[in-house]
Amino acid sequence: MPVNLNPPQALHPIRGVRIGTASLGQRDEPRHDLSVFEISADASVAATFTRNAMCAAPVAVAREHLGATTPRALVVNAGNANAGSGRLGLDAARTSCQQVAGLMAVAPEAVLPFSTGVIGLALDTDIMGKALPQAVDALTEDGWMAASNAILTTDIVAKGASRSFRVGDDECTVTGIAKGSGMIHPDMATMLAFIATDAQVSPQCLQELLSDCVRSSFNRITVDGDTSTNDACVLVATGAATTRNIDSQSAQGYSALAEAVSEVCTFLAHAIVRDGEGATKFVTVRVSGGRDAQECRQTAFTIAHSPLVKTALYASDANWGRICAAVGRAGVHELDIAGVRIWLDEVQIVEAGGRAASYSEEQGSAVMARDEICIHVDLGRGDAQETVWTCDFSHQYITINAEYRS
Amino acid sequence: MPVNLNPPQALHPIRGVRIGTASLGQRDEPRHDLSVFEISADASVAATFTRNAMCAAPVAVAREHLGATTPRALVVNAGNANAGSGRLGLDAARTSCQQVAGLMAVAPEAVLPFSTGVIGLALDTDIMGKALPQAVDALTEDGWMAASNAILTTDIVAKGASRSFRVGDDECTVTGIAKGSGMIHPDMATMLAFIATDAQVSPQCLQELLSDCVRSSFNRITVDGDTSTNDACVLVATGAATTRNIDSQSAQGYSALAEAVSEVCTFLAHAIVRDGEGATKFVTVRVSGGRDAQECRQTAFTIAHSPLVKTALYASDANWGRICAAVGRAGVHELDIAGVRIWLDEVQIVEAGGRAASYSEEQGSAVMARDEICIHVDLGRGDAQETVWTCDFSHQYITINAEYRS
Repeated sequence: MPVNLNPPQALHPIRGVRIGTASLGQRDEPRHDLSVFEISADASVAATFTRNAMCAAPVAVAREHLGATTPRALVVNAGNANAGSGRLGLDAARTSCQQVAGLMAVAPEAVLPFSTGVIGLALDTDIMGKALPQAVDALTEDGWMAASNAILTTDIVAKGASRSFRVGDDECTVTGIAKGSGMIHPDMATMLAFIATDAQVSPQCLQELLSDCVRSSFNRITVDGDTSTNDACVLVATGAATTRNIDSQSAQGYSALAEAVSEVCTFLAHAIVRDGEGATKFVTVRVSGGRDAQECRQTAFTIAHSPLVKTALYASDANWGRICAAVGRAGVHELDIAGVRIWLDEVQIVEAGGRAASYSEEQGSAVMARDEICIHVDLGRGDAQETVWTCDFSHQYITINAEYRS
Repeated sequence: MPVNLNPPQALHPIRGVRIGTASLGQRDEPRHDLSVFEISADASVAATFTRNAMCAAPVAVAREHLGATTPRALVVNAGNANAGSGRLGLDAARTSCQQVAGLMAVAPEAVLPFSTGVIGLALDTDIMGKALPQAVDALTEDGWMAASNAILTTDIVAKGASRSFRVGDDECTVTGIAKGSGMIHPDMATMLAFIATDAQVSPQCLQELLSDCVRSSFNRITVDGDTSTNDACVLVATGAATTRNIDSQSAQGYSALAEAVSEVCTFLAHAIVRDGEGATKFVTVRVSGGRDAQECRQTAFTIAHSPLVKTALYASDANWGRICAAVGRAGVHELDIAGVRIWLDEVQIVEAGGRAASYSEEQGSAVMARDEICIHVDLGRGDAQETVWTCDFSHQYITINAEYRS
């Protein structure tokens, strides 16, 4: 069950973005699994994509289209990733863009396709062709909540957040939704996240902002260390709420915008971990005292990926030796273990490479019983630090991934 | 349950090596968990150790002693890894060497200590002191079978093998035992392996031989990607069976010796995977067609470490999209997916980055139902290749590691 995660209560509309959903009609229980986003003509659009070399057909096509013109529409299907689908998959992704373009009177290159679900099959464009008119007919500024559900696969809870901020005297809003629960170790972006703001931001400034925010949010989470073939994160700025253009980091409103987008990205990234496949705990891994950020990140991810650490977390077993072993194999050059200190929340468990004198099993067990835990490692050799978030490894993870074909 | 693995039927004695075992008396069910090896004075000894920076106290002491003099004895306890145990642990490891030295009339530096078990507690040398005399009294050339059991922790099946080979007219033997089941992703050597031959080999030649053999056996297996703090592999050459000294790779008998040692190492490495925690399948991952060995190894280990691939193997689900995703995120520079081909045993599943035209789900399911499977990836861009071995990820793995403190 998701760890302290509720579905969004309300998602604020963004003027200049309309969303419609429909059902592809291929599931036992009927639910919407097709979403179309319409973006106003004067909006800026930024995106980041998976670095997986076996990237899905829609990722390849979206990248290509993003370079060709300013996007006017996004089309998203859940259930079929259209990945590992070769030439057929690429053709299907392009056809789906043409289908949307026809219905919305825009150029096919102005449509970005996104897919999530089972890897290995090309998208069925006949089925898409039948459902797309319904989704386009349903376009509304109030479509965020419906889309937050329509993009899910193994997720249990829908993920979305809105924040307000000011640009000069203008009240602006940022709203974002995401999906993701397994195959989560994003490299550039997570499974799928769609974020929009009614602030006015230049394309280049928007892309830099998104890259910064993704780096410290989606690119710092892991469920199972598996980087998806379909990761993508899109940020749209419609400019509908203000006439001031944010075109650089020194422009008025940039800090407020950056803070709001960063908060939404971090909320969504954490939500993906809280809804991680089989998760029973939400775990923050903070590594400080490194010579550089790279060695901190490396150590944090080694801990966050260790099946032994993750099963100990599941068992609420303060088996800190497994954390030590992960720190030791993280590849930190010439690490002096005498300088390493480790805490579980407020309890120090390791000092000078061994058990802390003040530590008792009772203290460790009390912390491990919590459903939100911070593992803090101080490498004791510098000022750099990094934080990543993960969940535990439970029987439910095995059940989900042995029984569900994702 | 272990995958097609039986305990050794017989292990041939090696003249010049005697082994005694005893019980430390700390378990609910009495079993031997302390082993002492006596090595003849004119033997050569080579060893490889974990590269984990948080290495255990006995590893630090064994490395130090190995550099100081030629070892005359090994002492091995199972149940307590004496790792993450700081200054107390180092003192305890040194004390255990002194205890053995006193009983066997050798220098303390001529004793190498080895420990395996729970991380985080210093070795109890009072308990060692009481049990060691019994182990030394029990020294016998026929002690290999007893020791193969006395070194186990979460292992279900004892692991050992003997091979014969000729040096000139002399019939020589190599015998080895190993333990290991979880926290298996050796870097230099596996959990614990002890191998001896009665061939006569110079120390330098023996160390090169061991390093070569370990590289292609123990360093090519993974159960969970967690590199232990206590890995160690020791190779002893007593010279008792022959007067010919093998002092280089061109010496008579070297090839036969190398083949025999390599076979024993590979058998033991495979045995560790077959007895991997919760294993139901034995999986060979072969990556060919790489530009260099490094990118082949990287790709093979990325597949072998993927929880999603491992749970699909457990479920006998031919979910090859997860293999594609692992290949794609392995970090192979500028990988052209159009050149990638993948097979499950004899069935080709992927060609040109998509599903092979000849592939059917039926074929895939038939292969996945087997308990020994080879995943073969051809990167299609060079002549290098590498092979690694792993097992699947089952409910039993979670149960073992959530409920057992290792």
